[in-house]
Amino acid sequence: MHFSSKLLEQAVEEFGKLPGVGKKTALRLVLHLLKQSKEDVNRFSQAFTQLKEHIKYCKHCFNISDTDTCEICQSPKRDRTTICVVEDTRDVMAIENTNQYQGVYHVLGGLISPMDGVGPADLRIDGLVDRVRQGDIKEVILALSATMEGDTTIFYLYRKLQEFSIEVSTIARGIAFGGELEYVDEVTLGRSIMTRVPYERKVG
Amino acid sequence: MHFSSKLLEQAVEEFGKLPGVGKKTALRLVLHLLKQSKEDVNRFSQAFTQLKEHIKYCKHCFNISDTDTCEICQSPKRDRTTICVVEDTRDVMAIENTNQYQGVYHVLGGLISPMDGVGPADLRIDGLVDRVRQGDIKEVILALSATMEGDTTIFYLYRKLQEFSIEVSTIARGIAFGGELEYVDEVTLGRSIMTRVPYERKVG
Repeated sequence: MHFSSKLLEQAVEEFGKLPGVGKKTALRLVLHLLKQSKEDVNRFSQAFTQLKEHIKYCKHCFNISDTDTCEICQSPKRDRTTICVVEDTRDVMAIENTNQYQGVYHVLGGLISPMDGVGPADLRIDGLVDRVRQGDIKEVILALSATMEGDTTIFYLYRKLQEFSIEVSTIARGIAFGGELEYVDEVTLGRSIMTRVPYERKVG
Repeated sequence: MHFSSKLLEQAVEEFGKLPGVGKKTALRLVLHLLKQSKEDVNRFSQAFTQLKEHIKYCKHCFNISDTDTCEICQSPKRDRTTICVVEDTRDVMAIENTNQYQGVYHVLGGLISPMDGVGPADLRIDGLVDRVRQGDIKEVILALSATMEGDTTIFYLYRKLQEFSIEVSTIARGIAFGGELEYVDEVTLGRSIMTRVPYERKVG
C-alpha cells in the first residue's frame, strides 16, 4: 500500500494492529474518522487513554470496574456463597444478560493455554483459592468456554478446589462443543447455568 | 449490554460509532487495547489526534498529504495534462498500485448522493473546473464507482466540463480480467455485450 501521508500511514498501522482488523478496513475506519470533527476525534482518542489510565479491577472478583469494589460485589442482593468463575468481563456481561444468576463472579483474566504461553500463574487463580479459603463459599461454578483451553482450566481449577468442602460445578454442555461462551445466545446460556452439574458426575 | 464500568462503556461506544463495527466487535477491540501497555494505548490514541490535527490536503488535487502539495503533484515525472478524478484517497492508492497511470489526480471527497444529502457543493467540483480552466489540461478521466451515485456524479461532471475543449473519458466497465463468464452478474454481462469493442482496437 502506497500512502500519500506518513500520518495517515501511522494511523492505519495502529488500527491494523487490532485483532481482526486488516489494512483495508483500517484505512476505511481512519478515513471515516478524518471526516469527523476535531472534537469527535479527540473524544474518540481520549476514551481509550482515559480507560487505560483510570480503569480498576474489583478487588474481590477482578471484574473491570470504575471503583475498588464492583457493583455486583457491592450489591446486597447477590448471593455471596456462590462464585461463578469466568474468563473475562465479556462473560460476566453475557451471564448478567440472562438474568439467571444471582451469585457473584471471579474473573480469571484468561484461560490456561500452553500454546499461547499462558500458565496458571498468569491468571487470578490464587485470588479464587483465597476467596474459597476465607469465605463461606458453598459452590463454585466453572463457566468457561467449551474449548481445549477451557477444559484444561476447568480441570486445573477442579483439582485446586478439591481440598475444600464446597461444590464445584460446570455449566451444562447444552452449548455446542468448540463454541466460545460470548457468542452463545442468551436462552442457551441461561439454561446451561440453570442445569449445571457437579463436576465429578461428568468424569465419574 | 450491561457494562461493569462507565469508562469501558464509553470506549466501546466510541468504537461502535465506526462504520461496520458492532457492539460486540467494539468490546472485543477495547478489551484487546486494555491488555496493551499504557504506551501502546497512548500511541494508538495519538495517531488519530495527530492525524486530525496535522493532516493537509494537497492544494492542487485535494489528496491527503503531509505537505501543501502532495508527492504526486510535486513529481516531475507525472503528466500534468491528464487528470484522473476519483472519489477519495483510497482510489488514488488503488490506481497507483496498478502502475498504469502517469497523470495527476483530483480527489472529489465523495459522490453526489441526494439520499445521503450530498450535493455537488459538498464536493471539490469547483476546484476541478478551476484546474481545467486555468491549466493545459488535455483529458479528464472520470474514475468513479459503477454505482448510482458514481453515474450521477459522472453525468454532472460531464456537463460541467463540456464547455472546455478537452477529452472527458470514463474508465472501462465490463467483465473483470480472469473473471469467468458464468459468475458475472447479469447487469455487468448485459452492459458489456452492449458496449462491446472491435477486437482489433483491444490488441492494437
